[in-house]
Formats: sequence, structure tokens, C-alpha cells
Amino acid sequence: MANGLTHLNERGEAHMVDVGGKDATRRRAVARAVLEAQPETVEAIIGGALKKGDALAVARIAGIMAAKKTADLIPLCHPIPLTKVEVEIIGEGVALVITASAETTGQTGVEMEALTAASVTALTLYDMAKAIDRGMTITNVQLVEKTGGKSGDYRRES
Amino acid sequence: MANGLTHLNERGEAHMVDVGGKDATRRRAVARAVLEAQPETVEAIIGGALKKGDALAVARIAGIMAAKKTADLIPLCHPIPLTKVEVEIIGEGVALVITASAETTGQTGVEMEALTAASVTALTLYDMAKAIDRGMTITNVQLVEKTGGKSGDYRRES
Amino acid sequence: MANGLTHLNERGEAHMVDVGGKDATRRRAVARAVLEAQPETVEAIIGGALKKGDALAVARIAGIMAAKKTADLIPLCHPIPLTKVEVEIIGEGVALVITASAETTGQTGVEMEALTAASVTALTLYDMAKAIDRGMTITNVQLVEKTGGKSGDYRRES
Amino acid sequence: MANGLTHLNERGEAHMVDVGGKDATRRRAVARAVLEAQPETVEAIIGGALKKGDALAVARIAGIMAAKKTADLIPLCHPIPLTKVEVEIIGEGVALVITASAETTGQTGVEMEALTAASVTALTLYDMAKAIDRGMTITNVQLVEKTGGKSGDYRRES
Amino acid sequence: MANGLTHLNERGEAHMVDVGGKDATRRRAVARAVLEAQPETVEAIIGGALKKGDALAVARIAGIMAAKKTADLIPLCHPIPLTKVEVEIIGEGVALVITASAETTGQTGVEMEALTAASVTALTLYDMAKAIDRGMTITNVQLVEKTGGKSGDYRRES
Amino acid sequence: MANGLTHLNERGEAHMVDVGGKDATRRRAVARAVLEAQPETVEAIIGGALKKGDALAVARIAGIMAAKKTADLIPLCHPIPLTKVEVEIIGEGVALVITASAETTGQTGVEMEALTAASVTALTLYDMAKAIDRGMTITNVQLVEKTGGKSGDYRRES
Repeated sequence: MANGLTHLNERGEAHMVDVGGKDATRRRAVARAVLEAQPETVEAIIGGALKKGDALAVARIAGIMAAKKTADLIPLCHPIPLTKVEVEIIGEGVALVITASAETTGQTGVEMEALTAASVTALTLYDMAKAIDRGMTITNVQLVEKTGGKSGDYRRES
Repeated sequence: MANGLTHLNERGEAHMVDVGGKDATRRRAVARAVLEAQPETVEAIIGGALKKGDALAVARIAGIMAAKKTADLIPLCHPIPLTKVEVEIIGEGVALVITASAETTGQTGVEMEALTAASVTALTLYDMAKAIDRGMTITNVQLVEKTGGKSGDYRRES
Repeated sequence: MANGLTHLNERGEAHMVDVGGKDATRRRAVARAVLEAQPETVEAIIGGALKKGDALAVARIAGIMAAKKTADLIPLCHPIPLTKVEVEIIGEGVALVITASAETTGQTGVEMEALTAASVTALTLYDMAKAIDRGMTITNVQLVEKTGGKSGDYRRES
Repeated sequence: MANGLTHLNERGEAHMVDVGGKDATRRRAVARAVLEAQPETVEAIIGGALKKGDALAVARIAGIMAAKKTADLIPLCHPIPLTKVEVEIIGEGVALVITASAETTGQTGVEMEALTAASVTALTLYDMAKAIDRGMTITNVQLVEKTGGKSGDYRRES
Repeated sequence: MANGLTHLNERGEAHMVDVGGKDATRRRAVARAVLEAQPETVEAIIGGALKKGDALAVARIAGIMAAKKTADLIPLCHPIPLTKVEVEIIGEGVALVITASAETTGQTGVEMEALTAASVTALTLYDMAKAIDRGMTITNVQLVEKTGGKSGDYRRES
Repeated sequence: MANGLTHLNERGEAHMVDVGGKDATRRRAVARAVLEAQPETVEAIIGGALKKGDALAVARIAGIMAAKKTADLIPLCHPIPLTKVEVEIIGEGVALVITASAETTGQTGVEMEALTAASVTALTLYDMAKAIDRGMTITNVQLVEKTGGKSGDYRRES
């Protein structure tokens, strides 16, 4: 382990760490991402939803599908059989707040799956609205909570 | 087009917009993402690099490979033959600043490719350091500049 | 060419045929698929849409994304830079009628992309409704029309 | 659950349903697809096989590989570790009849894997023969039988 | 460029090199791989082919499909629209000799596509025969020839 | 089973063999590949590493990520939840020696995962050095050892 980074061995080389000795337990993680945008942009996306536009559905589905691709995107992630994924998008003034949760019964946690789902949901919203608002910013991509596994539960304070 | 969102048709239904009539021109985009972390975490990642650890290389490569998967991740993105991708990571105190650039000669822009590269680079750094610092936040994911294409050049002000 | 099948060489071996000498022209294809189901199932899916449920959006997006994966699914298909994809779903009594269109400017046609989009849209509708109606049947998966390319235009008669 | 569709929550939003509480049991599904074609087309494909042409092998392998991609194609499908996949193609006059079976030991069924395998096998046959017969139709894509899991066994009547 | 390696910049960091200024020309590459095996193993594979077994077809198709995945496998490869791929397998005593060719009209060469096709064909043959011969060796994976592009033609001497 | 090849059924048709009845046990495999190159090429790659160039890291990561794609590349491989992957590259005069190991707790072995990781690592090194040395050869791709599973342990003699 180099510099306390578990994903590097004693020579500093990247490897996929051994989780073969860990128990397969129920694990869950929740992550958040925020898309800051002009009020008109938030309105266009949310309002689209009210008029049955697909904008929010496209973004939610992109996030769910991305959760399943996490091990293909993040080089040292283990492939995990997800048992549940959910993505919620709420409009709050000048921001869209995305909350993604992922669950598995496996040997390693699903933080990266939840974070990847939240990030890709935000990127997809950006893609759909970029023609009207190029200055949008994705911010506050963070782990909200995590349960299950030996390292203990975690809950972000704010 | 519903609510000004080009990716929805007049019935609000998502579609991949027609770019067949656009010229194939040289296009470039630069995006940024910032990973805020404890000073010790930034030091572990950057210091690992000084000692030839793979941490930064893993993250850069994840970003480059993710740029190539953009059309597979973002539902309404067109597949684009990227001609160049570059990812740079700089440590600045309590943050790692990621800059990703992408280029193509094609009928549509590469903003999403650059943003996806920056996001996945940040997620990969998070993955490698999460055992020592679960509170890291990815922030400031935004388009820095964009050139080429009919909609004109763009450069973020700050 | 064995038995008139262009995808097999004179020894009967599969190969990806040479399209390098063909012109890159504007090409378009439209395909159809029909999902036959109980009236209550059609109502649940379409009615869900009326109440802003995501069912139709999920299926449309699955079809669009599948079009982009065609060369990864169909072994001898050439990778094609799609310039447009659109999927439409209409409820008609005991059936949902799916129409998918795809376009490119390239050296080979997009029939398989349109057919793949229509098929995967139908499979996704099946997936969402299978808990209430296992007897659904996907039928009439066929090419409706095709334009562009040297082999000439095609339009299905009925 | 909206309109009885398990894949939508009470707000009508798509999610990947929670199967974490279900038992991992042996599950099996069989699906069918039929490719209707001109007699000469069926003969070209089947005859190719007699002369050691690869046509049927290409289609069978495409179906097997597609079964493994099901969760990547169908947005709300859970990733499943398939333990067996088999695809059979039989020529019957003006039709090729495809039967695909899939098995797993897991928390959810494999109907979609069998149906996806059958569909992609049919699409691959279409691709190989489309230069000689554009009017082919894929029909009768349906679940033949399903065993294992709490929802009980199913066997299609005809 | 570090140490003459074009894929590393002056700081030694990996990047996808800029090919945007290169001409799109016709390019072709041929690669080879050899699978050394027990005579009985070679016989089982080739003999299977004589009896219409799928062994060679499976391996050829795996190679063709792998060529299309090259940019997804090799981190710094550019995505390339392949216009032709062909894989040939010949049994020679205690070896199976694989020859793979790839073509494109693009801004960069297809050596890696041909080499990837040859390698994956060999790995697939290994997979099918490993239950009867675990000691097989893949050897002589090399570029046979390359035409097109500014760096000039290449033809391996032996 | 045709000709002793387990992956073909009695009619010679390819199928993904049934492993549903096998126990999920701890399994491990180690594979090797050698890249023969000019001494200057080996020096450029290894020396780059000494100067913190990314060459070896890129290749190691490509190998690790390829291990996770094995079931997508090798048509009849079962999808396997890898619990560990490691790739080591050592320079020895005119060769780079790659050793890849893979582990799982599953119903089938991980030989193909280890062999795929070693092969793709070698192909990636080839890609990065091909501009200075087109004559490189990948050789000695072979299984070094295998433990776990009913077929018994295996260790290559030399």
C-alpha cells in the first residue's frame, strides 16, 4: 500500500484489491450531485416534465444504466451484481438536486456505483440543456451515506 | 422542440437530433472538474506520483477511456470519432484540479466528451482515495471553452 | 460469396465485407416492431404515459441507445456514425406499434440500426410489463423503408 | 407502482426494482423467435450450413453474446451471472425457428436474457441475408417457458 | 514526447495523440498469431470444422468483433470506422496459424485492430480447447504488413 | 460434445456450457505474456517508468480492465465476478515479461481472465512503442498456474 492508498501496492502499482476474503453482505450507498443552472433552464427541464416531456426520465435512466457500467468506467472497481438502483431529481430554484442510491449483496461496497449514477444523471441533464445554457456547473458530487460492510456505516454531516 | 430543449421533439419525446446536415469541421472543447479533499489525501495522491505511484496515471487513463464511451453513457449523444483527448491533474492545496480536452473533426461538438472525461477522472481519484477520506467532494464540473461549429466559440469567464 | 450470402466468403467463412470503396452518402432506414399484449397491459403502459409515468420514455431511450450498439451486437455490422435516431411508440388496441428511424452519412446502410432500435424498444416494453402479462408477443419486426446507397431505395408494400 | 408496472414507482418514475431480499435460486427461461423469409433465403442460410458455411454459427454466437449484454441493453434489467446459454436454429420451409434458453442461480429471472438472445439471433440472420431478401419479418418473439423464482413456473400454451 | 514514445507527452503523461491534422486515407494492416497445441487438439478443432462444428467460426467471429472493440481495450487507441475485417485460421501440424486483416479510410492506422483480432481469435481457440490441453501457447503475435498513412508501408521480413 | 471440445454440443454447435451445478469455490489463475522488442524499445518503456512516465501504468491498467471484459470478448466465457486482478511487468533485456493473476469465488475458473489481461497488457505496450519499433512480437502467452475447481490444480513446468 503506497501512501495509504489501498489501490496501489507497495511498489506504487495499481491493482484491483483482493476482496475474496470478505463476506457477501447487504450494502447500500446514497450519493448526491447538484446541477446549478439559470432559473429558466431549471424551469425548462422541470416544466418539460410537467408537460410530459422526457427530460427527467432520460436523465434518470442514464444514471441507472451508468451505475451498471461502473466497473467498466472506474479502472480498479470490482464488478458488482446490483440488486437495486434508484435516481431522484428535484428542482430547487437555480439547481437540480440529484440523489442516487445503489444496493447489492456482495463483497464490496457500492459507493462508486451511486456516485457514478449521480454524476452521469447530471451530465445527461447538462447535455439536454446545453444549447440554452452553456454555463451550468455540476457541483456537490458527494457520498451522502453508506451502510453495510466491515468499514462501518457513514453518514455525511451536512 | 419542447421548452427550448433541443433533445425533445414537439411532443416532448427524447430523440437524437439530426446533425446530418451540419458540416464536418474541426471542433475542440475543454472541461474542468475539481476534487476537494483533505490536505493529507491530496498529498497521498500527488506524493504517490512523485514516488512513481500510479494514482494520477490511473485517473488520467480512466478519463481518456471515458471520453471514448461518452455516446454509450449519455443517451442522446452522437457517436464521435475523437482525434485527441488529454487529461491533466494538478494538486492545489486541498484540491486536485482536473482539466480535460477533446477534439474531433465532425458534425457535432465534443463538450460532453470533455465533461465526461473530467468527471470520470475525478470519480477515479475518489475511488482510489475513498478508504482514507470519504468526505471528498467533486465540484466545479464545467465547460471551460469550446471552439468550432456553427453555434460559435465559448469561453467561460472565471 | 457462399449461397448468395454476401457476409460469407467463397469458403463459407464469415467476414466483415469491404465497404471501403463505397461512397459516403446520406442514408436512412425506418423499421417497425409490434408488441401484442392484453388490452389492460397496453392501457397500463400508455396510461402510465398520460400520468407522466416513464414507461414509454424508458423504452424509447433503450431503443435509441441500442441503435448505437448495433455493431457491437450484430457480428458482421460495420461501425457507423449515426447522425439521427428517433423512436415512436403508438398504442393501438391490443398492440403497441414501434417505429424507429436511423440516419447516417456513411459507406453502408442503417437498416440494422433501425431494426435493432425497434427490437430493443419492444423488448424493453416487454420487460416493464412482464409481471402483469407474460404472454406478450413481439411481431412484425421488419424494414419499412430505406433510402440512399447504391442498392437503391426500398419501401415495404404493406 | 404505477398502473401495475413494477418498474415504475408510485410517482411513475423508472427504477431498478429491489431484488436484494429474494432468494438466489436456480432459474431458467426459454424464448422463441421466428424469421419468415423466402424459401430461397432459408435454403441459402441452411444450405450454407450444410456446406460448412458459418451463417448459423454466426447467428447462434451473436445470440449467446447478446444474452450476456442484456442488462446493458434493457435499462431496468439487473445484471445476472448466466450459468448457461444455448441457441438452436431450425429451418422449416419459409421460416427459421430460433429457440434460446438461459439459466442462472440468482435473485431474479432470465426471461429477458432468453428473449434478447432469440431476438439478436434473428436480427443477425436478417443482416446476413438482407442483400438477397429485404422483406424478411421477425415474428413470434415470445417466452416459451420459465422455471424457478417465487412468481411460479410458466409454460406458453401454443 | 518522453523517451521517443509518442503516446506520452513531455511530462511523461499518457494522452491520445492528435491525429486531427492527418489526412483520411485508405489504410490496411495484417497481423498474425499462432496457437501451438498438441496434435490431437489441432485435430479436434480442425476436425470439428470438417464435421460442421462451430469451433473455427466461433474464433473467427470473436476476432472480428474484437477488432471493433480495439479502442475500448487499448487505452490510447483512436476510435476507427473499420471498413473491412477478415480472419483466417489454418491448421499446420502442431499449430493453428491465424491471419487477421483490417481496413479503414481514416486518419490513423489499423495495426492495433489487426493485432487485437488475431490475439482474441487465438484466446477464443484456447478457451474452447483448454479442457483437453491446458499447455497451449499463443506465440508469434506480430504485424505482418501495413499500408497507407504517412509513416510508409511496412512488410515483415519473415 | 464434439471432438472432445466441451464448448460444442453433440451436433457441433457452440453453446455456453452449464456450470449451474458446480460449486462456487475460490479460484485463481496466473498467466504470462512476453513482448520481445529492441533493447532501445525496452529501455524507452522501462526508462519512461523510471522518469515517472505512464507507459507501464497504462499497460497494467489496460490489462486489469480487459480482465473485466473477458466474457464480452470470448464468446463462450461465463461472466465472472472477479475479486482480484493484478498485472506485473518486468523488463528483461530484449523483452518485457508480463504476469497477470485473477481470482474469483465462482462456479468456473478464471484462466481466460488472466490470459486476456496478459494479452491486452502486451498489446497496449505494443501500441505505445509501435512508432519506434514495428517488429515487436508477443510470444509465450500461456497459463502459468491455476488453482481451485473440480478439474484440479495446474502448474506449468517451465
